[in-house]
Amino acid sequence: MTVWRSASCAVRRLEAACRCPRRPFTTSSSYASYDPQRRDAIVDLLNYDSDHPDAVDKIEQDVRVSGWVRSVRKQKQVAFAHIGDGTTARPLQAVLKPEQAANLSYGTAVTLNGAWTPSQGKGQNRELQVTSVEVRGENHADSNPVQPKYQTPEFLRTVPHLRPRIPSNALLLRLRSHLISTFTKWFDGLDFVQTHTPIITSSDCEGAGEVFTVSSNDSKRSGQKTPPQPQHASQVEHFFRSPKYLTVSAQLHLEALAQAVDRVWTLSPTFRAEKSDTPRHLSEFYMLEAEVCFATDMKQIMDLLEVMLRNVTGYISVSRVGQELMEARKSPKDPQREGDYAVSATTLDKRWLRLMRANWPRVTYHYAIKRLQAAVADKQVKFAFKPTIEGGLQAEHERWIATTLGNGAPVFVTDYPRSQKPFYMSPSTSTANSKGTNDTVACFDLLVPDLGELAGGSMREYRSQELVNAMKAKGLAGTGSLEWYQDLRKYGSVPHGGFGLGFDRLLCYLSGINSVRDVVAFPRWHGRCDC
Amino acid sequence: MTVWRSASCAVRRLEAACRCPRRPFTTSSSYASYDPQRRDAIVDLLNYDSDHPDAVDKIEQDVRVSGWVRSVRKQKQVAFAHIGDGTTARPLQAVLKPEQAANLSYGTAVTLNGAWTPSQGKGQNRELQVTSVEVRGENHADSNPVQPKYQTPEFLRTVPHLRPRIPSNALLLRLRSHLISTFTKWFDGLDFVQTHTPIITSSDCEGAGEVFTVSSNDSKRSGQKTPPQPQHASQVEHFFRSPKYLTVSAQLHLEALAQAVDRVWTLSPTFRAEKSDTPRHLSEFYMLEAEVCFATDMKQIMDLLEVMLRNVTGYISVSRVGQELMEARKSPKDPQREGDYAVSATTLDKRWLRLMRANWPRVTYHYAIKRLQAAVADKQVKFAFKPTIEGGLQAEHERWIATTLGNGAPVFVTDYPRSQKPFYMSPSTSTANSKGTNDTVACFDLLVPDLGELAGGSMREYRSQELVNAMKAKGLAGTGSLEWYQDLRKYGSVPHGGFGLGFDRLLCYLSGINSVRDVVAFPRWHGRCDC
Repeated sequence: MTVWRSASCAVRRLEAACRCPRRPFTTSSSYASYDPQRRDAIVDLLNYDSDHPDAVDKIEQDVRVSGWVRSVRKQKQVAFAHIGDGTTARPLQAVLKPEQAANLSYGTAVTLNGAWTPSQGKGQNRELQVTSVEVRGENHADSNPVQPKYQTPEFLRTVPHLRPRIPSNALLLRLRSHLISTFTKWFDGLDFVQTHTPIITSSDCEGAGEVFTVSSNDSKRSGQKTPPQPQHASQVEHFFRSPKYLTVSAQLHLEALAQAVDRVWTLSPTFRAEKSDTPRHLSEFYMLEAEVCFATDMKQIMDLLEVMLRNVTGYISVSRVGQELMEARKSPKDPQREGDYAVSATTLDKRWLRLMRANWPRVTYHYAIKRLQAAVADKQVKFAFKPTIEGGLQAEHERWIATTLGNGAPVFVTDYPRSQKPFYMSPSTSTANSKGTNDTVACFDLLVPDLGELAGGSMREYRSQELVNAMKAKGLAGTGSLEWYQDLRKYGSVPHGGFGLGFDRLLCYLSGINSVRDVVAFPRWHGRCDC
Repeated sequence: MTVWRSASCAVRRLEAACRCPRRPFTTSSSYASYDPQRRDAIVDLLNYDSDHPDAVDKIEQDVRVSGWVRSVRKQKQVAFAHIGDGTTARPLQAVLKPEQAANLSYGTAVTLNGAWTPSQGKGQNRELQVTSVEVRGENHADSNPVQPKYQTPEFLRTVPHLRPRIPSNALLLRLRSHLISTFTKWFDGLDFVQTHTPIITSSDCEGAGEVFTVSSNDSKRSGQKTPPQPQHASQVEHFFRSPKYLTVSAQLHLEALAQAVDRVWTLSPTFRAEKSDTPRHLSEFYMLEAEVCFATDMKQIMDLLEVMLRNVTGYISVSRVGQELMEARKSPKDPQREGDYAVSATTLDKRWLRLMRANWPRVTYHYAIKRLQAAVADKQVKFAFKPTIEGGLQAEHERWIATTLGNGAPVFVTDYPRSQKPFYMSPSTSTANSKGTNDTVACFDLLVPDLGELAGGSMREYRSQELVNAMKAKGLAGTGSLEWYQDLRKYGSVPHGGFGLGFDRLLCYLSGINSVRDVVAFPRWHGRCDC
């Protein structure tokens, strides 16, 4: 507990240097004037003793907390309520008179005034001796679909609008927020320009999977539940003059922007109209993509990705939210730990350590297939799919690679056969391809145990004629919609490469949650778009 | 120039404290090991003398620059090239032997090695005495649609993939990046949780405008240019089981997340299938939205928005990119200043000052209409549309309000008639409504000169029955798709409010660019989705 506190404390001091001051127990700072509420954050109250070591016995008067009741226990003389306000997964204990607690139930929004007092009871150092209670809105605890007990992840996905109120789910919201801000600072430090790439795009042929079509229907009525009426093809007027799609990747547009400012990144939504039903796929998900000009060697791109993930894992692991996450995984009280919702604290700890410190092997696709075949021949493992060069890596193969070749750490698999990859990838450099032929491309997938592919990247074909040839070979040359992309090779072309990382998958991996459906606030997949 | 340098310097020191170290002229730092290229950023080179005041006469050997040729001037004995790498709008001057410059033309990607030497020439303190040149890729300068001369904004919008290479457009990319990161830090400082709200949504009835429909078409062929074939309604199988749309606002989902962690924000794409043809509207645009629980007074929300914009403008105005922007607006050389592309430096300077320091009036809708009517009666102004309570504020009215009532500063107009606003807004508080009736809602629009509406917000109806009544009054009660939204009022309901800000409009306003079509990298509007 001491370690936890001091680590957290150091991080908070670091964080404080980079941002506006927090406001524990002061109302005079200029900050207070634009804080939309006057509140004392529960996280600050719970850290009071470690933040104010000279005032351990002091009773802090005039404390004001706003939050939601997590539980309430009513006795004859006294009532206890646990309150959460989203700033920490840990609850604040409020001590009330029974009549003050009369209208409190699971979920009620309350504002409590009182004194922050050293506690005689077990389980907390301090408690709020409540002087007044204000119930802030309606609450029908009995009919609430979310209850403070174990409920299956499957059920909770049907109520995504209520699910984040569970403290462990609120923690995932905060982890996402912290990750976004950590990536923003990290890329800032390398002079990468954060960009907003388009969501509606013209091309449906990047080879990244099935696309959603975007259309406008002027005759559509509000609240209409039936499908749009059929129209003759000649009557269909396209809002954008030709069919448009939801983007499957920002990459092509990022390449255009990179040629303006050298190095760019984006964290933006991408889409697949695929009927996948796995814990790793959604129809709408966030991708973190980066593109770097003047890079000639794929090693530079892999280095960038590797150091980024090592650093970000490091920052998360010492952050308040990271520490709370680890505490939650360790706690036998967390109802979310049951079933296959999340991995154990031990597994999570190993993951973080391997992300931060282990060696991440880099092997070619051909080498990986050879090792897979040898393992099958030696009867070390059985696969449903026989590993072959032509067959590609199946999920079961990827798992074996990460577990065995990577010894549990992430593994880069490089130089896949050209036939398995999109048109825009450069040929492998001669040394990379163990077969010594030119039929592989300078690309990599980053595989991790349990999850499989976390990221992928490549060098891009930057030579004009070679790009046209590659497009022809994939049957894309005549489509016209990628002429602009070919332009990038005619004017100021430059060797470049980049990667795309599944942001929601990373959130899964770092938090130990097993399904992307449980780390995305409002997940969408085939047949499911609740709320 | 001195002021510019020292301000920029101070800001960079501040920035440095918050991020990874920059790397001017060191290759030994751990940072260098994961920087994907070894490069000396042109911005660092140009700031060399101010950053190293003790080494003003020193020649820095072994400098390596990678970038694109902005112009090249070949003489008999010597050639001069201006190089840009996207880190600054200012060019680096390279001095080459004529034979070294033989293959350089406008746009060529090059890597130059040389010595960073005090310059004898005018226009720069230092120049790169080049020892070796490497041309990095193809460049067909003559056929490049983008040329280093004045080209109309309308033309440049047809080549969005090449447009950002113009230095003033690259500057807009960097401004966007800096804004994103500034907002991220600002909200971090107030413990707001940054969230990813869904893009594909079920509701098409928020009253924010026409929606795009999302569909999947399994029979669609790659590269197909004709509209999808008509199908009988019974054959249409919805990917998500019912029709889905592109979101028009994150607000409803943000409200759900706010009830988990108290205060949330998002910067995410939103969509309108409207045939607007104005410099202020796009079909795809980014909105910054925030939602705050336990707020009871709309003043709190307006305060939050106002202080946010004042602070962010302050940060931008002293930032490197902000200073460069102001320099660019002042420069008579900037070809982008011609026509109606951007406002003058004087206008921009006033904007910034008013955003940072002027009083922002807050007037009710009824008062604004009264003043508009009085101005018409007094023949101070003529409008195409007569201002009436029922008629709503037209763009010309909004401009007059911001210019006259706001004296050029932003103006909050509050408490609009309920009939003009979506169903979810709370009634006005009694004091706010100048008419003293209950037919107005607790909402505001933030109007700025030239642009009109920059942001809007409201208190949300948080009482269960009143929300149902408001939905019934708008004909939305039976649709079912918003049952989840009604749940938020049944379980742990709490007074709350929030705002949405047009992020691209803010970028316009802060940069002085006149059209959102020129600040968005790949703009989409009716009939136009290039690249």
